[in-house]
Amino acid sequence: MSVWPVLEDSELSPRAAAVIADIRATRNTDFINNFWRVLANDPALLERTWASLKEVMAPGALDPLVKEMLYVAVSIANGCEYCIRSHTTAARAKGMSEAQLGELLAVVGMASETNRLATGLQVPVDDAFLPKK
Amino acid sequence: MSVWPVLEDSELSPRAAAVIADIRATRNTDFINNFWRVLANDPALLERTWASLKEVMAPGALDPLVKEMLYVAVSIANGCEYCIRSHTTAARAKGMSEAQLGELLAVVGMASETNRLATGLQVPVDDAFLPKK
Amino acid sequence: MSVWPVLEDSELSPRAAAVIADIRATRNTDFINNFWRVLANDPALLERTWASLKEVMAPGALDPLVKEMLYVAVSIANGCEYCIRSHTTAARAKGMSEAQLGELLAVVGMASETNRLATGLQVPVDDAFLPKK
Amino acid sequence: MSVWPVLEDSELSPRAAAVIADIRATRNTDFINNFWRVLANDPALLERTWASLKEVMAPGALDPLVKEMLYVAVSIANGCEYCIRSHTTAARAKGMSEAQLGELLAVVGMASETNRLATGLQVPVDDAFLPKK
Amino acid sequence: MSVWPVLEDSELSPRAAAVIADIRATRNTDFINNFWRVLANDPALLERTWASLKEVMAPGALDPLVKEMLYVAVSIANGCEYCIRSHTTAARAKGMSEAQLGELLAVVGMASETNRLATGLQVPVDDAFLPKK
Amino acid sequence: MSVWPVLEDSELSPRAAAVIADIRATRNTDFINNFWRVLANDPALLERTWASLKEVMAPGALDPLVKEMLYVAVSIANGCEYCIRSHTTAARAKGMSEAQLGELLAVVGMASETNRLATGLQVPVDDAFLPKK
Repeated sequence: MSVWPVLEDSELSPRAAAVIADIRATRNTDFINNFWRVLANDPALLERTWASLKEVMAPGALDPLVKEMLYVAVSIANGCEYCIRSHTTAARAKGMSEAQLGELLAVVGMASETNRLATGLQVPVDDAFLPKK
Repeated sequence: MSVWPVLEDSELSPRAAAVIADIRATRNTDFINNFWRVLANDPALLERTWASLKEVMAPGALDPLVKEMLYVAVSIANGCEYCIRSHTTAARAKGMSEAQLGELLAVVGMASETNRLATGLQVPVDDAFLPKK
Repeated sequence: MSVWPVLEDSELSPRAAAVIADIRATRNTDFINNFWRVLANDPALLERTWASLKEVMAPGALDPLVKEMLYVAVSIANGCEYCIRSHTTAARAKGMSEAQLGELLAVVGMASETNRLATGLQVPVDDAFLPKK
Repeated sequence: MSVWPVLEDSELSPRAAAVIADIRATRNTDFINNFWRVLANDPALLERTWASLKEVMAPGALDPLVKEMLYVAVSIANGCEYCIRSHTTAARAKGMSEAQLGELLAVVGMASETNRLATGLQVPVDDAFLPKK
Repeated sequence: MSVWPVLEDSELSPRAAAVIADIRATRNTDFINNFWRVLANDPALLERTWASLKEVMAPGALDPLVKEMLYVAVSIANGCEYCIRSHTTAARAKGMSEAQLGELLAVVGMASETNRLATGLQVPVDDAFLPKK
Repeated sequence: MSVWPVLEDSELSPRAAAVIADIRATRNTDFINNFWRVLANDPALLERTWASLKEVMAPGALDPLVKEMLYVAVSIANGCEYCIRSHTTAARAKGMSEAQLGELLAVVGMASETNRLATGLQVPVDDAFLPKK
């Protein structure tokens, strides 16, 4: 029971339907997950979010699998169950092994631990870590 | 001005000195950053934190550079300046290009945006994203 | 299944019952939501929380609907499902349209994205944004 | 000292310069704050971020001042100093009084307090707050 | 340079001055830290915040030092430097040893690590941890 | 339905079984909660996490109950339901009364409120709160 209904294909406005069609074409699959079906209630929000995501997650200087793993890591830190589950599924589909997931989790946990220690102790940044300019 | 002083080598207890020596040997450098010099005020905390970090960041199923980038991403989400600066420096030392950093930042920003949308709308998890068992 | 039971009216201590009565009178409704029924297990906590909320959410320099929308936005950023659902309901009752909710979500998402970019890049604050004194 | 340099106008690439010119035209001011001058090191990131922000913060169903106040509230919850200072300045420029800022802060603080209470007690969502479908 | 000025005693409104006087009397010291001097710009916010803090931090079922340590722990998790520094100082004044601070930090770090692991793996809550009702 | 299955005793690898046996011996109980049964899918992660937790939560300068309460407080601030429920249960088992839980919640809520106020107002740290060195 989401705040806005999960729209079926037949309930989409023409503007939302065009975005959903582009998601299907880009991902080469008929499956549309609930995130997009709920955003579809606000076509402008759907359109802008998809346009950004499509651009950000496209192949570039980083490997697509690395991007997915970064997405999972941030979603854990932000505490978003939906995002953890959907992007973990996506990362597995792109080849993430369970051993890699285990190491990802270990890094996320370790980073959160040392983040708190550095913050709690207010450790001053070393000159070596500061840009020259 | 950290909560505990940044200890010089000459101020280390024997137990802390042994950990610092292992950091130098493992990293093959004489440089010891402030995080460890501050933790050194509590040798047990220093010892345990270094043992965990050494194990977690060692080569494994994930590339060491990927691990550093995950560390940076989580540190941004957790809002720890020290950690962002130290691990961004480490990632660059391991070969991260500025174009890769740009994409890392884009993913972290995008994930935070969609995390909030999914949470704000309470999107239900698709069956396709749930494990069978 | 909350950590403390959801108390029925008949289970309230006199001190808790007095607070619940004031909530009913102030809101002009018989409905008491679970948040208060759970807090009622600790009458001092219930009393202080309600006194603060009543004062903070009263009409003032900000429109009551704007206050509710700020509440929703913060609850999303803090990741509290109960708070998102209860204050989204309250904001709708005070007149928030679905188009306004869509824009609220867009701002919350966008702010979270640029927050991470500014933090990740450690952008220095412009002099123009600093108070003179 | 940001992670990427704060670029002067003369250091901008043509693609970044075009975005900066659009910011100046849209805001009707010559002043460009550091956030954009740092993002300008990655023209694609600059371009996409500005395009989204321009769309999200444009007049719509919500008053521009309300949008700025939501931005401030989220930035506080996310702990981003740069964002707090820049958007508080922007909100004041759009007419926010100090009394309104005081109430905004009170709501942000109160919401954070009750968010933690609801989370700590795991209060179950009332049926009245759930959508019918 | 705070968002609102740090008020001197001579700049306080009568309502703010009364609260400041009560802080001095309650704490039995002439020293007033900046948090209160900044809040004093909004006397209603100052008054309500102090009234709540005075009640919450008073001796009760929990030892005052334990309360201060909980305050420090939450402030680290929320990433508030001002709060970390002021409450660490307060906890030391109430008798916290450096060894106790070291253990507090270890627990905060460890909790943050396992919090991320439990969230990342979406571990189901054991029946044994759920209330009967 | 966790991301990794909740392993039965019969499904444990020898390395995981050894850790589980040590948890049973240390806690003097046969009950193993789901957190460990899920981590057991990655024996290295299980082993390291348990070794750290065992060391951190052992009796020391802080009372074991105080450690559990700090764990609960941080888990609330980090928004981890599993951790809130498991450590609240553990704290009760170590003697936490409901009145103490009420005060813990009040401190967590109050700290989160004043954390946001101090952050939102960017209150400068008093010299009195800064270490000399």
